[in-house]
Amino acid sequence: MAAIYRVAHAQPVYRRGVPWRRRYRLPASIAHPVRLLPLAFFSLIVIGTLLLLMPFAREGEHDPSFMDALFTSASAVTVTGLATVDTGTYWSPIGQGIIVVLVEIGGIGIIAMTTVLGLFVGGRLGLRTRLAAQTDMHVVSLGDVGPLFRRVAVTMLLFQGLTAIVLTLRYYLHYFDSFGYSLWHGVFDAVMAFNNAGFSLHADSLTGYAGDYAVILPISVAVFAGGVGFPVLAELYKEWRSPKTWTIHTRLTVWGSLFLLVVASTLFIAAEWNNAATIGGLSPIDKFITGIEGGIMPRSGGFNSFDWGSVEPVTLNTAIIMMFIGGGSASTAGGIKVTTFLLLGYVILAEIRGEEQVRIGSRSISPRTIRTALSIALIAVGLVAMGSMLLMIFSGVSFAEGLFEATSAFGTVGLSTGLTPLLNVPGQLVLIFLMFIGRVGTITAASAFVLRRRQSRYHLPEEQPIIG
Amino acid sequence: MAAIYRVAHAQPVYRRGVPWRRRYRLPASIAHPVRLLPLAFFSLIVIGTLLLLMPFAREGEHDPSFMDALFTSASAVTVTGLATVDTGTYWSPIGQGIIVVLVEIGGIGIIAMTTVLGLFVGGRLGLRTRLAAQTDMHVVSLGDVGPLFRRVAVTMLLFQGLTAIVLTLRYYLHYFDSFGYSLWHGVFDAVMAFNNAGFSLHADSLTGYAGDYAVILPISVAVFAGGVGFPVLAELYKEWRSPKTWTIHTRLTVWGSLFLLVVASTLFIAAEWNNAATIGGLSPIDKFITGIEGGIMPRSGGFNSFDWGSVEPVTLNTAIIMMFIGGGSASTAGGIKVTTFLLLGYVILAEIRGEEQVRIGSRSISPRTIRTALSIALIAVGLVAMGSMLLMIFSGVSFAEGLFEATSAFGTVGLSTGLTPLLNVPGQLVLIFLMFIGRVGTITAASAFVLRRRQSRYHLPEEQPIIG
Ligand SMILES: [K+]
Ligand SMILES: [K+]
Repeated sequence: MAAIYRVAHAQPVYRRGVPWRRRYRLPASIAHPVRLLPLAFFSLIVIGTLLLLMPFAREGEHDPSFMDALFTSASAVTVTGLATVDTGTYWSPIGQGIIVVLVEIGGIGIIAMTTVLGLFVGGRLGLRTRLAAQTDMHVVSLGDVGPLFRRVAVTMLLFQGLTAIVLTLRYYLHYFDSFGYSLWHGVFDAVMAFNNAGFSLHADSLTGYAGDYAVILPISVAVFAGGVGFPVLAELYKEWRSPKTWTIHTRLTVWGSLFLLVVASTLFIAAEWNNAATIGGLSPIDKFITGIEGGIMPRSGGFNSFDWGSVEPVTLNTAIIMMFIGGGSASTAGGIKVTTFLLLGYVILAEIRGEEQVRIGSRSISPRTIRTALSIALIAVGLVAMGSMLLMIFSGVSFAEGLFEATSAFGTVGLSTGLTPLLNVPGQLVLIFLMFIGRVGTITAASAFVLRRRQSRYHLPEEQPIIG
Repeated sequence: MAAIYRVAHAQPVYRRGVPWRRRYRLPASIAHPVRLLPLAFFSLIVIGTLLLLMPFAREGEHDPSFMDALFTSASAVTVTGLATVDTGTYWSPIGQGIIVVLVEIGGIGIIAMTTVLGLFVGGRLGLRTRLAAQTDMHVVSLGDVGPLFRRVAVTMLLFQGLTAIVLTLRYYLHYFDSFGYSLWHGVFDAVMAFNNAGFSLHADSLTGYAGDYAVILPISVAVFAGGVGFPVLAELYKEWRSPKTWTIHTRLTVWGSLFLLVVASTLFIAAEWNNAATIGGLSPIDKFITGIEGGIMPRSGGFNSFDWGSVEPVTLNTAIIMMFIGGGSASTAGGIKVTTFLLLGYVILAEIRGEEQVRIGSRSISPRTIRTALSIALIAVGLVAMGSMLLMIFSGVSFAEGLFEATSAFGTVGLSTGLTPLLNVPGQLVLIFLMFIGRVGTITAASAFVLRRRQSRYHLPEEQPIIG
């Protein structure tokens, strides 16, 4: 490990004057990790589309639809859960199985890859440089990557297995006669929950289980755990007894996630308390349970036990903000991530207080990290704004619907006001693009297209425009 | 001048161990410039409210309304132009005169003060430290401030005088019989235009002049000039022939403003071309002229010759983005400012390319400046989001209306979908708060409340959370 860090902190490779790419045998355009990640996801989406176009994937006699197959595959691989067709009736059990496998590979894949990237984080280098450095370390570190991948996979399967058992029992004892049917629903929902992919075998998602703690709570817990991220789960597993020793990353993620959960749930319950179309008709305790779900799911589980098309405008606003923030880094959740969001809060605090260092507890955050966080947040704002504008132009949707749907796609959330099946092809392509970028990562995606780098061997003189 | 810069670049005062506040005679809570600016604006709003409550300020017999007086005063002082009542019929000529004076003082005030602040910009210090440093320089630099204020005032009055003459002639020759009446309208509109304050003596703003170049163009030019900002106007005045010698600030502002103008106008014309409720019924040339107006006014003139309540959703989206960006620094325009916006774009570019320095042309931008720009943008996002949520809660407005109105208030724009007169008191107070913060400046306002500063005499160890 020490060796890895030494390399990561060394001079960026390109400075030595030898183009680093030439030292590898794979074509440079593929070998660069910054391109490997988008390429892997893209390939998986293509394979999924082809499989879903097969006759055995569909229920009944209807013709294959390329757009429905593409959209479903993209939504599954990016663990989003938005759907143009009803998962439970349009796809055959085999088709549903394909969706489960795509979600599982997409979910494990993104967690493993981002965890590995997270390990190589070097304090002074930008993400691009870090990725380049990582390629250099390939030979040194390949030995560590295997076990890590395995650990990620085992943890995830364990979590999902537990959730599946609880759900299967509940479904078999209270809802369905057939054990096989209950098991299939239990496994499907557990995979979707931990992977934060809001697909459901029911057209109305969890609405049929509204108020049933034994279903809503296990799913919410699995969504929350999957959305916290592997690095945090790994640290909590070892150090949950001593919060004071936690890394900044774990502290930000854990306390930030809980804070956002409380804020979102409180706002949800307060705004919807008397809304008959959502939770107005439930008992106070059921309102509370559904409120927790309404606080968790936009970040970015995507399950729902009520109609998001009927919520109050202010709840829509809260949900859009939560979908935008998303969950933990290296998790199955999307969004700009809790750490990015909180880090920016600390930056503002430092600026207002006039402090030179941005500090969190007894640690400081480097300007370079701040720059990356800033870039992630701003690209996200730009993408969501552009995406919702395109939805308005192409599919003639309203302002609120468009913004909600675009944010849901970018945050790989999967909640919808009911718009998804009604979009035309350009509108669907916009959502596919947003899901893809949201899952791969804004900067990773952008860097994959902009590989050239301007050389700067000397420090340019500073100039200060007036801002604000 | 050299002396000023030397001080600005020196060690922050608080490091010397002597609390800087104690060296002054004025109470510290007032003497601090970070508090002087909000206080000056607040006092002006109070005075304006009292004047507008006088019987001679109102037309006819109706009772005084405290909220209408307060809202109008706040809207005038912050050069916004949002109005709960019809300026032309509710207020008497004296009341309208009070509004003109409030706008003029508010406009000149903000330009002068922010220009002075801009002069003291030190590359390595945060805004707070710069403001503190400025207080220290008070004695040294007071001699320079007087002439600068005068120059600002003379430039502004000259611009407004020219615009007033053109408008008066046009009004007298084509619209009104009385020269006095034409003169009053010409002066009123010229003051409002250069100050980017969208008040109008007509209930429908410029709609009566729709398609009349001789009215729309002078007003648009005055709005644009006022919104570019004094530092840029001053540099252009001397150096307009040699764009290559322009400072980064002037280059960003000029090219950025033109770029935003083209983008916004193009999007506007394309989206509204067939919308009968806005420009659909006009001739192509009139569509073009109105489109330029539709591109300029959201940043942040606030005049309109069509109904913003009838535009397409995508135009609403474009306008919200433009209102948020706003105009030039140290200008009468609001928003986060063009330089802030563009600077953040260069940051993203550097991050995507993996460059260590953020460069614009042959200059680099310090991490500290980036941090300030980031903070300004993020506080603005937070305020607008919170403001529109409160509007939804208090006044039960729709998502799009709430966001548009809140952004218009924060960006001191003054455009409205027609909502302002319909808001209840809490809703109006939200807008007043947003106008005030938007005009005073987010960081200045926040710093005024958070004067304490944590000492950090040593550099804390860095730690790097995973972000994104
Ligand atoms: K999801
Ligand atoms: K204005």
